[in-house]
Amino acid sequence: MTEFSATAARLLATMRAQRPLVQNITNFVSMDVAANALLAIGASPAMVHAPEETPEFVAFTGALVVNIGTLSTPWVEAMHVAASTAHTLGKPWALDPVGVGATTFRNHVVEHLLALQPTLIRGNASEIMAVARIAGVGGAGARPKGVDSANATSEAEAAAVALAAKHGCVVAATGAVDFITDGARSLRLANGSPLMERVTAMGCALTGVCGAFLAVEADAFAATAAAIAVYGVAGELAAERCKGPGSFRVAFLDRLACVSEEDLAARLKVIA
Amino acid sequence: MTEFSATAARLLATMRAQRPLVQNITNFVSMDVAANALLAIGASPAMVHAPEETPEFVAFTGALVVNIGTLSTPWVEAMHVAASTAHTLGKPWALDPVGVGATTFRNHVVEHLLALQPTLIRGNASEIMAVARIAGVGGAGARPKGVDSANATSEAEAAAVALAAKHGCVVAATGAVDFITDGARSLRLANGSPLMERVTAMGCALTGVCGAFLAVEADAFAATAAAIAVYGVAGELAAERCKGPGSFRVAFLDRLACVSEEDLAARLKVIA
Amino acid sequence: MTEFSATAARLLATMRAQRPLVQNITNFVSMDVAANALLAIGASPAMVHAPEETPEFVAFTGALVVNIGTLSTPWVEAMHVAASTAHTLGKPWALDPVGVGATTFRNHVVEHLLALQPTLIRGNASEIMAVARIAGVGGAGARPKGVDSANATSEAEAAAVALAAKHGCVVAATGAVDFITDGARSLRLANGSPLMERVTAMGCALTGVCGAFLAVEADAFAATAAAIAVYGVAGELAAERCKGPGSFRVAFLDRLACVSEEDLAARLKVIA
Repeated sequence: MTEFSATAARLLATMRAQRPLVQNITNFVSMDVAANALLAIGASPAMVHAPEETPEFVAFTGALVVNIGTLSTPWVEAMHVAASTAHTLGKPWALDPVGVGATTFRNHVVEHLLALQPTLIRGNASEIMAVARIAGVGGAGARPKGVDSANATSEAEAAAVALAAKHGCVVAATGAVDFITDGARSLRLANGSPLMERVTAMGCALTGVCGAFLAVEADAFAATAAAIAVYGVAGELAAERCKGPGSFRVAFLDRLACVSEEDLAARLKVIA
Repeated sequence: MTEFSATAARLLATMRAQRPLVQNITNFVSMDVAANALLAIGASPAMVHAPEETPEFVAFTGALVVNIGTLSTPWVEAMHVAASTAHTLGKPWALDPVGVGATTFRNHVVEHLLALQPTLIRGNASEIMAVARIAGVGGAGARPKGVDSANATSEAEAAAVALAAKHGCVVAATGAVDFITDGARSLRLANGSPLMERVTAMGCALTGVCGAFLAVEADAFAATAAAIAVYGVAGELAAERCKGPGSFRVAFLDRLACVSEEDLAARLKVIA
Repeated sequence: MTEFSATAARLLATMRAQRPLVQNITNFVSMDVAANALLAIGASPAMVHAPEETPEFVAFTGALVVNIGTLSTPWVEAMHVAASTAHTLGKPWALDPVGVGATTFRNHVVEHLLALQPTLIRGNASEIMAVARIAGVGGAGARPKGVDSANATSEAEAAAVALAAKHGCVVAATGAVDFITDGARSLRLANGSPLMERVTAMGCALTGVCGAFLAVEADAFAATAAAIAVYGVAGELAAERCKGPGSFRVAFLDRLACVSEEDLAARLKVIA
């Protein structure tokens, strides 16, 4: 067992023991699977977005997750109120910039949310590159395809590092290889399965799970890396006994609920 | 076979034969699973909320279900219009006060909906206690955790009875033990599985299923008890052959579609 | 292998190779399953609806799908902006008139959308008859039951032909038998499974899949027929190894991902 798999196992155990409340302002597509992923792994999800109640609610959550998948002006306001409150209260909050780069509206929304200092930005390679471009720190060559990525995460590494350094946050570009950085440290993980791209909102649900780990660990780089590690190992195990994307999703939720220290020790692939 | 299991079986058969139309104004997380639970058990669900069409739609539904999970001001208006219409037309309507007690906004919304005389209020123990407190009939000690409960249903019994008596409705606090009361009669059921708390919106879907039974049986206490009995037995059967929360949800929908009079007779656990 | 099954197989292969981006403005119930069906069959779905970004987004999609299931005034505006843009840009767009005929509001929305010249209208028999009535070309006898149909597709054939002829579009009334027409040509398919009516939003997801085929084939009649053929065969295969509606949905997504030219050749039932 490497030091990293031991850390991931420890944070997983801590998260399961604390069962943190994670508030999600997320898109309509991911509502079901993100809540189920959080419940499966051992957290307590709540989907709450009304500006009338968000400030009160954020105050007793462990972390906030903001996902811009199915944007509209009222939801942008909801996101702003929630992220502002999290920032003011010093609560960790994660930004999932779904489809950024595809439209001017999305780019503007992300630009404003960046100013509220997310603890973590997690997206696919094209999204991370597009956010870096908005932040003025690289990201040339982003090729978003709707909400999917046409870039490999290797193309997003420099942008991710620059973005993390500029905004003092953790940035994770996930895909076949996951790249996690806080600007100083970085890690590449290679678990998971190609089936994860054939099930909708798997990335959104991952950002939710990152929120659960951020709620229990102040080192956001370690928390994010652990969440992505656990998620990837569960995906890899699930892929071994399924017949396609439908049964993969079912097996994946089963695996999230039982992925263990031993699984992490045996499976985690940290690459150079 | 007890008298209650015979009643539950009869109401299930009646509901399946009539295939009632159940209108749901529900939260974004539960849309999919609530519709699927209603279809599986044999009802015809419709998710319709626009105030522009709700009065017309309510008129030909068998029952209305209002769930406040993912609140916002426009949806509160939709709920008000729908519940008012149901009340005026004498249609049964069920209130699922998700997360009540967690924020002032939620408490105000529930206070206004209570005035429209729901036929049934179904929630977890913390939610029922919080509603009782809003109604001024007890409920001290409610400990909501986001949308989950930190109270056992035994703690909510007195509040449930007082609430039912004051508002002339049925109240059901569900959990490991389910407590159903109309203020005069009460019943405790102990079917189900701990996995039901590891799948999102299982409570929301249960309130939907209660709506299907309310649509075919004027005795709201009997209808609610039957719905909860069938749901719990299906959950117990599903839990026997699954590997975790993902496969549990799949098996549960399969079981809702085939749960039988014999299953009810063999499995129902009424406790003193 | 018939000529039609060869065409369907060719279009399926083309669609999988091109992986078209399909924009869906769809209802909250179908968000998850429609996205998963599109991913499973090999397309790239995006759920984008904000009027602020839709014109920009439609420009690089392969097709647009508009589904009126969970209507509200802001979404009606979103649908109008998106369909107008698709019409102006010459992009194919499909209309799924969920629940039309049930309320005046729905009828008005469909009337306005019809003026934007959808490429395809797909619904159940009652819905197609209701749309024909709105268009003034028949449709007497429509018996919608909420969002379900109490009519057989055979009752909708004349209305479908008249509607297609008047609006210069393809019309598909789907059910136990699927009827597809462009006013001049028509086709009846008899694949699928009764379980498809026990899973929510299977019709909505089918319209999404039709969008994926419309994105790669200019002959909208051939594209729609191929999509419905593939969907029905996948449903039939899925039904053979499932225990109820929960496992059917899982098996169906698995089958969509692997349904093959051979399956189509062996299974397709074109009826006279």
